[in-house]
Amino acid sequence: MSYEPRPENRFTFGLWTVGNIGIDPFGEAVREVLSPVQLVELLAEVGAWGVNLHDNDLVPIDASVHERDQIVSDFMKALDATGLVVPMATTNLFKDPAFRDGAFTANDPRVRALALQKTMRAIDLGVELGATTYVFWGGREGVETDSSKDPLIALARYTEAMNFLCGYVKDQDYDLRFALESKPNEPRGDIYLATTGAMLAFIGTLDHEEMVGVNPEVAHEHMAGLNFTHQVAQAWLMGKLFHIDLNDQIAGRYDQDLRFGSANPKQAFFLVKFLEDVGYEGSRHFDAHAYRTSDYEDVKAFARGCMRTYLILKEKAERWNADPEIQALLAKIAEDDGTTAAVLGPYSTERAAALKEIDFDRRVLGARGQPYEALDQLTVDLLLGTR
Amino acid sequence: MSYEPRPENRFTFGLWTVGNIGIDPFGEAVREVLSPVQLVELLAEVGAWGVNLHDNDLVPIDASVHERDQIVSDFMKALDATGLVVPMATTNLFKDPAFRDGAFTANDPRVRALALQKTMRAIDLGVELGATTYVFWGGREGVETDSSKDPLIALARYTEAMNFLCGYVKDQDYDLRFALESKPNEPRGDIYLATTGAMLAFIGTLDHEEMVGVNPEVAHEHMAGLNFTHQVAQAWLMGKLFHIDLNDQIAGRYDQDLRFGSANPKQAFFLVKFLEDVGYEGSRHFDAHAYRTSDYEDVKAFARGCMRTYLILKEKAERWNADPEIQALLAKIAEDDGTTAAVLGPYSTERAAALKEIDFDRRVLGARGQPYEALDQLTVDLLLGTR
Amino acid sequence: MSYEPRPENRFTFGLWTVGNIGIDPFGEAVREVLSPVQLVELLAEVGAWGVNLHDNDLVPIDASVHERDQIVSDFMKALDATGLVVPMATTNLFKDPAFRDGAFTANDPRVRALALQKTMRAIDLGVELGATTYVFWGGREGVETDSSKDPLIALARYTEAMNFLCGYVKDQDYDLRFALESKPNEPRGDIYLATTGAMLAFIGTLDHEEMVGVNPEVAHEHMAGLNFTHQVAQAWLMGKLFHIDLNDQIAGRYDQDLRFGSANPKQAFFLVKFLEDVGYEGSRHFDAHAYRTSDYEDVKAFARGCMRTYLILKEKAERWNADPEIQALLAKIAEDDGTTAAVLGPYSTERAAALKEIDFDRRVLGARGQPYEALDQLTVDLLLGTR
Amino acid sequence: MSYEPRPENRFTFGLWTVGNIGIDPFGEAVREVLSPVQLVELLAEVGAWGVNLHDNDLVPIDASVHERDQIVSDFMKALDATGLVVPMATTNLFKDPAFRDGAFTANDPRVRALALQKTMRAIDLGVELGATTYVFWGGREGVETDSSKDPLIALARYTEAMNFLCGYVKDQDYDLRFALESKPNEPRGDIYLATTGAMLAFIGTLDHEEMVGVNPEVAHEHMAGLNFTHQVAQAWLMGKLFHIDLNDQIAGRYDQDLRFGSANPKQAFFLVKFLEDVGYEGSRHFDAHAYRTSDYEDVKAFARGCMRTYLILKEKAERWNADPEIQALLAKIAEDDGTTAAVLGPYSTERAAALKEIDFDRRVLGARGQPYEALDQLTVDLLLGTR
Repeated sequence: MSYEPRPENRFTFGLWTVGNIGIDPFGEAVREVLSPVQLVELLAEVGAWGVNLHDNDLVPIDASVHERDQIVSDFMKALDATGLVVPMATTNLFKDPAFRDGAFTANDPRVRALALQKTMRAIDLGVELGATTYVFWGGREGVETDSSKDPLIALARYTEAMNFLCGYVKDQDYDLRFALESKPNEPRGDIYLATTGAMLAFIGTLDHEEMVGVNPEVAHEHMAGLNFTHQVAQAWLMGKLFHIDLNDQIAGRYDQDLRFGSANPKQAFFLVKFLEDVGYEGSRHFDAHAYRTSDYEDVKAFARGCMRTYLILKEKAERWNADPEIQALLAKIAEDDGTTAAVLGPYSTERAAALKEIDFDRRVLGARGQPYEALDQLTVDLLLGTR
Repeated sequence: MSYEPRPENRFTFGLWTVGNIGIDPFGEAVREVLSPVQLVELLAEVGAWGVNLHDNDLVPIDASVHERDQIVSDFMKALDATGLVVPMATTNLFKDPAFRDGAFTANDPRVRALALQKTMRAIDLGVELGATTYVFWGGREGVETDSSKDPLIALARYTEAMNFLCGYVKDQDYDLRFALESKPNEPRGDIYLATTGAMLAFIGTLDHEEMVGVNPEVAHEHMAGLNFTHQVAQAWLMGKLFHIDLNDQIAGRYDQDLRFGSANPKQAFFLVKFLEDVGYEGSRHFDAHAYRTSDYEDVKAFARGCMRTYLILKEKAERWNADPEIQALLAKIAEDDGTTAAVLGPYSTERAAALKEIDFDRRVLGARGQPYEALDQLTVDLLLGTR
Repeated sequence: MSYEPRPENRFTFGLWTVGNIGIDPFGEAVREVLSPVQLVELLAEVGAWGVNLHDNDLVPIDASVHERDQIVSDFMKALDATGLVVPMATTNLFKDPAFRDGAFTANDPRVRALALQKTMRAIDLGVELGATTYVFWGGREGVETDSSKDPLIALARYTEAMNFLCGYVKDQDYDLRFALESKPNEPRGDIYLATTGAMLAFIGTLDHEEMVGVNPEVAHEHMAGLNFTHQVAQAWLMGKLFHIDLNDQIAGRYDQDLRFGSANPKQAFFLVKFLEDVGYEGSRHFDAHAYRTSDYEDVKAFARGCMRTYLILKEKAERWNADPEIQALLAKIAEDDGTTAAVLGPYSTERAAALKEIDFDRRVLGARGQPYEALDQLTVDLLLGTR
Repeated sequence: MSYEPRPENRFTFGLWTVGNIGIDPFGEAVREVLSPVQLVELLAEVGAWGVNLHDNDLVPIDASVHERDQIVSDFMKALDATGLVVPMATTNLFKDPAFRDGAFTANDPRVRALALQKTMRAIDLGVELGATTYVFWGGREGVETDSSKDPLIALARYTEAMNFLCGYVKDQDYDLRFALESKPNEPRGDIYLATTGAMLAFIGTLDHEEMVGVNPEVAHEHMAGLNFTHQVAQAWLMGKLFHIDLNDQIAGRYDQDLRFGSANPKQAFFLVKFLEDVGYEGSRHFDAHAYRTSDYEDVKAFARGCMRTYLILKEKAERWNADPEIQALLAKIAEDDGTTAAVLGPYSTERAAALKEIDFDRRVLGARGQPYEALDQLTVDLLLGTR
C-alpha cells in the first residue's frame, strides 16, 4: 500500500507551519524567511492539497493597498501553478502589540474595534482566495489575573464580536462558515473558552449559531490532559466539526505543535479511526511545525511525515475494522440477552413503571468482566505491525 | 466581623464528605463509620445549613423496604431536630461492581437499565427528603481504551438516559432540576463530557434542556489545569449554574478534594468574589473531605474551616469592591476615549462600513500598558490582610 | 520471530499486580481474591520468570507465627512446582491505618519504630524466599500541608531509617541490595524524594550508599511529566539501576499503572531500547494491573500483553540499530570536522587557553540543521511496522 | 511593620527580568529596550540590593573588545552610583541559533567547544563584576526525540563540560561557586537533569563537587507539579543551596515566571518560612518578569510586589513561629510517650534485637488522629490576616 498523499485526503498546512522560522521564548529565528510563494511550492512538492493562512502570513500588517494586491496576485499565480487550494483562512490577532491585552475582549474599546476591522478585512481576503472556512483562535483573549477583567464582561464582548462578524459575512453573502478554536493557556495565563466543550456551549448562545462550529486542535486539548477523540466526537455529534487541527503534544506542558502522531501514535490512531469511520469530509489540517533543529530539508521531512503517519493510521483503522479477532471481541462485548429491550428507549410512563419493577441481580452484573485488555493488546499489536 | 456560618450562607456538605472514612487506593479505612444521624448532628454542631446525599449514603444498597423506611424516618427526625435541610441529592452509580464499566454508558444493556432504575428510585428518595436539585456525576462513564467503546454510541446512550430521567421527573411532576458534574479522569482513564464546558454543550442537545444545568467542581476543573472561575462564569451567563461543588486541588494530579481554599486561597478568592458579585443564590456545597490523618475532632475543624475561609474571602471581596485605590485602577483600565462608540455594538451595514474606514494607529494602541501587576499586587495585599 | 516470554527475559510481576482486585477511591472490589499459590500458578501459566511481593501480599499482617510458616511453606512449594523465583521483596508500609501519617517519617515515634520492625521482619521473609533486591516505596512519606511536618526533620528521619536498615542487612550478612522508588504524589499530597533524581541524590548521603540504588517506575515519573528514559539513564550512569518498574501512564493525572506500552508505545520503545542497548541484567518487573473491567481471563491477557509488547519493542530496537537509513542519519548527525578535537577533553590550562582563542563562526554553526524530523519519522515507521 | 526592601534582605533581579520586553511565542516586543544602566537605575529606584546578568544581557554577543570594555565601564559606574552589587552571573547559551541543538550536549563538537569558550569568557566577566555565584541553566540541553541523542552520551558531555569549567575556575583562582538550575521542559521537549533532585545527584558525580550546588527555581519545579519547598529542603540538607530563583507558576503548563507569590501565596509562604527558619544567607533572586500588558511603571510595581510579598510572608512566618495556638498543636503532634526511645537511633545489633521484640498495638497507633486540618486552617487564617 502506498502512503503517498492524494488530493482526496484533503491534507492542508498553514503558511505559518512550514514557514515557521523557529523563534521561541528563549531563542531567535533559526531558519530564513521563505516567501508565501516559496511556501506554496514547498507544499506542492511534498504533496499537500491545500494551504491555509492568517492574513499577515501573506500580507504584512503594514503593507499598502498596492503591495497587498501584488502579493495576492503573485500568491494566486502560485496556487494556479501548483494546483493548491486555500480552504481556510484566519486572522492574526495575537502578534501585534496592539493586541497585548486581547482582541475582541481587550479592555481598550479601540483595540476591540481594531480587531473587528482587521477581521473583516481578513475575511475579505480569505474569501477572495477561495476559503470557505474561517477560523478564530483567540490566543490573547484571556488574563494573567482575574482582577484585570470581569469574565462576564469579557464573554459578553466575545459574543458581541462573533455576532457582529457573523452579521458581516451574511451581509456580504459570503459562502463562509466560522470554526472556533479553544486553548486553555499560553500565551495568556488563562484563555477564555478554554476547551472545545466550552466553545460548543458558547456557539449555542450566538445569534447565528448555524454558521459557527469548532476547530479542535490536538495539542490544545492534550495540554489540558483531555482525550482529544472524545472532544471531537462531541463536536461531530452536534454537527459542529467544521475543521480540525492535527499535530501532537504531551499532556501538561507548553504548546509543542509536534509532527502528527509523533508524541503518541496510539492516541493518533483512535483519532484517525474516528474521522475515517464517520466520514469526516473536511480538511485534515496540520497545525504543527518542525523542530527548531530542522533545516528546510527536514521541514519537508516533517510535512511528509505528518501526512504519511495519517495514511498509515488510516490503513490500520481499516484493518482494525476488518480484523476477525478484534471484531469477535467487540461482538462479545456488545452481547445483549434482550431482557431489557422493552424498558430501554425513550421515556414513557409505562416503560418507567416496568423498569422500576425489574429485579436485577447486581452480583451477576458485577461479576461480568469485559475483555478490554485483550482487545487493547490486539490494537497495540495491530498498531505495531505485528498482526 | 464574625466568620460564623449562618443559614443565609446556604452552606451544605454531603454525608459522604464529613462521613469519609479514609479509604484510598493504597490504604484501609482510618475512621469508624458514623451513621447518617450522627453525621447530621456533626454538621449541625459545626453550623452547616444543609446536608446532601447519594442514595446509598443514607440507605444501604441491599436494604429491604422496611429497613429503608426506618432509616429515612430516623434521618428525617434528625433533620427536624437540627433544622438541617436536604437541598440536593444524587445517585451512587460508581461504587457497586455492577457499574465497573459505566452506568448510563455501560456496554451491557442490563447495567444501563439498572442505572436508570436506581436513579429513579434515588430521585424519589431525594424528593421525599425535600431536594430540589439532583446532581449527576458520571464517574464511571468513560474508558481506559477507546477500543472498548465508540464515543458516539456512548454519548448517544448518555443522551437517552438523561432524556429518560427528565421525562420521569416531569411525569412525576417533581419540583426538581438536574445539575450535571464533569470530571476529566479518575476513576476512569478518560471520562466522557470531561469539562463543565462540555456539559454545557451537552445540555443544549437534551430534550428538556430547561431543567438541566451544571454542578461545576473546583477540583475537577483544576485537575485539567483550568481556571475554575471562568468555567463558572460561562455557566452563569448561560443561566445554568444550578449548583456548585467547593473544595480545592492542585493542577495535574489525582482528585484531592481538599478543604476549600486550602490549596490556593487566591484562586478561591476570585471564585467567592464572583459568586457573591453576581448574587448566586444556590447552595455553597462543600464536596471535600478531611485529610486521612484526621480524627473526627479534626474532621470538624475541616468542616468549620471550609465555611470560615469562604466567609473570610466573602468579606475580602466586599472590601476589594470598596477599595478606592483598586477602584481607581479599574477605572483607569476601563478608560474609553469614546472614539469607537459609534462603531461598536450590534452589526449593521453602516457600522461595518464606518468601522472599516477608521485609520487606527496601532503603535499608539500597542504602546498602551495596563497596570495589572499593580492591581494584582493590591489584591495580594488585600488577601494577605496588609491593606 | 516469537514474542513468547523466556526465562532469560527476566520478566517478573508482583503478587499485588495480577492479584489486584480492583478497589479504587470510588469503588469496591470487582475480582475475587486469589491466594498467593493461585497467583504463582497464574504467572507460571502466562510465562513469567519471577514473582515479587510485599510481606502482606503473602502473609496477612495479623497472621500467627504458625500461620506464617504454613503460608510460606505452601508458597515455596508452588515456586518449586512452577519454577518461578522471587528476585525482589518489599514492605507494605502504607495499607494499615497505623501508617496514615507515614512510616519512617511519621510524627509518632512509635509508628517509626513499628515501620522499622515490620521492615526487618519483611527483609527476613524476602531473604528466606531468595530475594536479592529489596524495594522501598515510601508512599505515605509525605504531607498534605507543610505545616504538619518540617521537611528537614522528615528527611533526617528517612535517612536514619535507611541507615538503620542497611546496618541490619549487613549485620545479618544478607546478600541483599536496596532499591528506592520515588513518586511525586498520591496517596499523599506531596511525597518526599519525589523523583528518581531526588532519590539518587539522597542515596549519596547514606552511610552505606554502595548497597542502595533506585527502582524507577514509569508511571511515577510520567505523573510529573518527565521523560522516563532520561531518569533511567542517569541512574544507569551512576551504577544505581538496581531494579525497574514497568507500566504506563499519561502525564499529569492519578496513578494509572497501565499495561506496559499501552498508553504510549513510542515512549516505551525508547525505554526498552535503552535497557537492551546497555545490557541491563536485572528484572523486567511489571508493576501494573489490569483494568477494573477485567475478569481473570483478561488479567492473563493483560500480563501476557506486558511481556509481548516488551519483546516486540526489543526486536524493534534491534532493527533500529541495524537499519541502514537510520544509521546513515545518525552518522550524519554525529559528523565531526575534527577542528575542535584538540580543545575538547579534560581541563588543562593549555586547552583552555587554546579554546579561548578560537574564532568560531556562529553563523555557520547556527545555520546547520539536523535531520531529526526525518530520523524520528523513520522511527515512527519502524515502530508502526511500515519499514 | 514596614515591608520596604533593605540591603540585608539581599533582594536581586536579573537584568533580563525587569528588562524583559515581552516577546513570546505568539507576539512581538511590547516594551522598548532599556539599557543596562537604565535597568540598574530602575532596580535602585525600587529598592533592590543586587543585579544579576547573562553575559549578553550586558554585552551584545557581537560586541568588539572595545565596545565591551566601554559597556562594562558604564555599567560599573552605574553600580557605583546606585550601590547595587552583582552577586551572580550566568551565560546565555540558548538564544543564538548556534545553540539550537544544545550547548554542552550539542551533537556538533564545534558547538560544544563554542559553549565552553563563551562560558569561560562570561565567567571572566562575572568575576570582573564581583559575582561569587555562577549559574548554569541548560535550557537547550535536551531533545524533542530520543532518537536524536543518546542520553548516556549527552550526560557524559554535560559532565565533561562541568568538570572543564570547574577546572578553569580553580586554575584562575576565582572565588566562584557554580549553581546548577534544572527545568523539565521548554524550550526543549525534554531537558536533561530535569529536576533539582537530578541536579543534586549529578553534582555528586563531578570532579569538584564541593564547588557546585544548585539554583532551584519555583516555576521549574511547579511545572512538574512538585512541592518546591521539599526540593529546596533536600538541597539545603546536602549543603547545596547556593542560590535560589523566586517567581511563581501554576502546575502543568508553560513557563510563566510570574511575580513572586502571585500564583499561590500559600506555597510561597512555606518557602519563605523555610528560607528564614534555616537562616539561608544567599540572594533572594527574583527570576520573574512583568505581564506582557505592563508598561515600565507597571514593571516597577511588579518588582516592588515581588519584594513586598516576600517581606509580608517573612513577617507571617515569624508570627507563625510565635503563635501560641499553632505551637500548642505542634507540640501535640510531636507527642512522644518515650516508649521507643531506646530502640530508635543508629543501628546496633542490640537495638535491632530489642526493636524486633516489641509488641506494638497497631490498632492504637492506627486510631491516633492528628489535628492537621486544624493546624492548616490556623495557617490559612494567619496568611489571610484574620489571626
